[in-house]
Amino acid sequence: MRRADAGLGFLLTYENVARYDAGEVFILDRRKYPATVEYVRCRDYTEVARAITEMVTQSGGPWMAAALGMVGAARAVRGMSPEAAQAELERATYALSHARPTTSQRMVAHVERIRAVAVEALRAGRDPEAAALAHVEAQREARYHRSRQIATRAVELLPDQCTIMTQCFAETLIGFVLLVAQEQGKGISLIAPETRPYLQGARLTASVAVEIGVPVTLITDNMPGYVLSQGKVDAFICAADVITLDGHVVNKIGTFQIALAAHFHSVPFYVLGTPAAQNPTIETVKIEERDSNEVLHAMGVRTAKESVRGYYPAFDITPPQLVSAVVTGQGVFSPYNLRQHFS
Amino acid sequence: MRRADAGLGFLLTYENVARYDAGEVFILDRRKYPATVEYVRCRDYTEVARAITEMVTQSGGPWMAAALGMVGAARAVRGMSPEAAQAELERATYALSHARPTTSQRMVAHVERIRAVAVEALRAGRDPEAAALAHVEAQREARYHRSRQIATRAVELLPDQCTIMTQCFAETLIGFVLLVAQEQGKGISLIAPETRPYLQGARLTASVAVEIGVPVTLITDNMPGYVLSQGKVDAFICAADVITLDGHVVNKIGTFQIALAAHFHSVPFYVLGTPAAQNPTIETVKIEERDSNEVLHAMGVRTAKESVRGYYPAFDITPPQLVSAVVTGQGVFSPYNLRQHFS
Repeated sequence: MRRADAGLGFLLTYENVARYDAGEVFILDRRKYPATVEYVRCRDYTEVARAITEMVTQSGGPWMAAALGMVGAARAVRGMSPEAAQAELERATYALSHARPTTSQRMVAHVERIRAVAVEALRAGRDPEAAALAHVEAQREARYHRSRQIATRAVELLPDQCTIMTQCFAETLIGFVLLVAQEQGKGISLIAPETRPYLQGARLTASVAVEIGVPVTLITDNMPGYVLSQGKVDAFICAADVITLDGHVVNKIGTFQIALAAHFHSVPFYVLGTPAAQNPTIETVKIEERDSNEVLHAMGVRTAKESVRGYYPAFDITPPQLVSAVVTGQGVFSPYNLRQHFS
Repeated sequence: MRRADAGLGFLLTYENVARYDAGEVFILDRRKYPATVEYVRCRDYTEVARAITEMVTQSGGPWMAAALGMVGAARAVRGMSPEAAQAELERATYALSHARPTTSQRMVAHVERIRAVAVEALRAGRDPEAAALAHVEAQREARYHRSRQIATRAVELLPDQCTIMTQCFAETLIGFVLLVAQEQGKGISLIAPETRPYLQGARLTASVAVEIGVPVTLITDNMPGYVLSQGKVDAFICAADVITLDGHVVNKIGTFQIALAAHFHSVPFYVLGTPAAQNPTIETVKIEERDSNEVLHAMGVRTAKESVRGYYPAFDITPPQLVSAVVTGQGVFSPYNLRQHFS
């Protein structure tokens, strides 16, 4: 059977996000791609958690890395007493899900399920590593299928010839929008802001488009408003780190500005993903602040004088009045009616 | 008498913008500051025009560089026949004023006046170089005085403790806002977006603040919207490359996005400068498109894969409904009533 990641190109293929080998997790260093292809070797879950905190991988990457880190933890507890094994798996669950604050509620639910599978295997006298790995591989396949399903709904909203703008990393959801649009014979092209300070747009999103064979134009983060004013963009489409039940979209810093400009210029803004049952309102979401030193450097070179301070909020909040639709695995919803997704 | 540039710090002091020496113009290379302090030597007006095109200097810098380039042209025509001298001065006027398209109408008026002074001196049998240089030095002093006057009006609009956000390079107008606010005992601090791809905000604006002694925080160009949402900014203030008589503001790419976010979050947007009589409507302004290669590099390092294209519009347009006030040498005006400035 065809794997769900077929056709997505190098960056989104399972093994190039993170791979598991006998207790160790090898994570593609997305901070360096495409200049170099390097994998960070994590020998246990604490190293996986640290890699996530340090943004070796981001967007959908931590979902996979944390899952494989949990498989490693399930291997490490073999031979421990049941009590010690359970305690260790709980520590791993906490560490892996809390590596970054903004998404921790969603990650708890994800990692907790793997822990439960490992514990159940231990209780039943089966191998917890094998059980956890089988679960993760099935979940991964299901996740990619769901991404394709959501993307397919989004593509239905686009004209046959279309230019879309996105923000930050075009992970599987946007990757599948490009792929499915091509499969359907739609002429699709992408405009990607570079997404400072990590430049995920320049380094990763543009690479995904190139790898799928979609024309891509790179702009800097101060240009989306002007580009939207020119009438050349059919939709602003992005995934989200959190979609709260009250219709707020928490995504990479800059999303709000683009959504606002899209609204001003009557360009629809479609958000792809699953509303977070763990986040009923925007008040439950903590916006992560990262090392301000990143803002003071570009591609490793200091930009400003030494005495200048930086500030680095990693995400922003787009309110529902700027969101045209939320596209989920269940359908296309108004941001004001997201509870319908669960019914 | 105290020079009008006193207290503005290294970057805004006359001689550090551009200096004239026996027909040659030495222009501070703002593409490299503050990493290195280098002057580009221009031996005649064609080299000055090329330096402006290549953005050795920008913002208010071309005003000064073109003026001194014209002084050099006035020196070079000594000894020519009256007809040849006039023709050469006309060529210089055209080249220096058309080095960049968006501001060419305003630059024509500026350089044309220097040409007229040189021609008048030639006709009267006086030294055209000396006459032109005296004119330029007087104009420079008057320009800085006018900048201080405009900035003083703008400071009156600010609370005693204030944080302002600007965009792109804080040339004399914003420099004087910081200086005058300090002189008046106001506690002022600055938030500066880095302004990719040339990073004028990180390299130049932040340096001006440091040199004047004003606390400055650097952010990337995708962050102004979020920062404005936090209620920490009292005003968004910038100068403009062109203010059209119908109230549109043409300024560094990104200004529109920030103005839109400021409007959304009820933060006033003050534009400082002189409305352009040469531009009655926004339709008369051409938005310059620059080498897209700049977008694909940061601090000299390639960011995206080789096959990725870039796009680099250098300016954007903010419509009058997003402008709270235009502060000119004559007063504080509504963007809908700029003709009043001339009455």
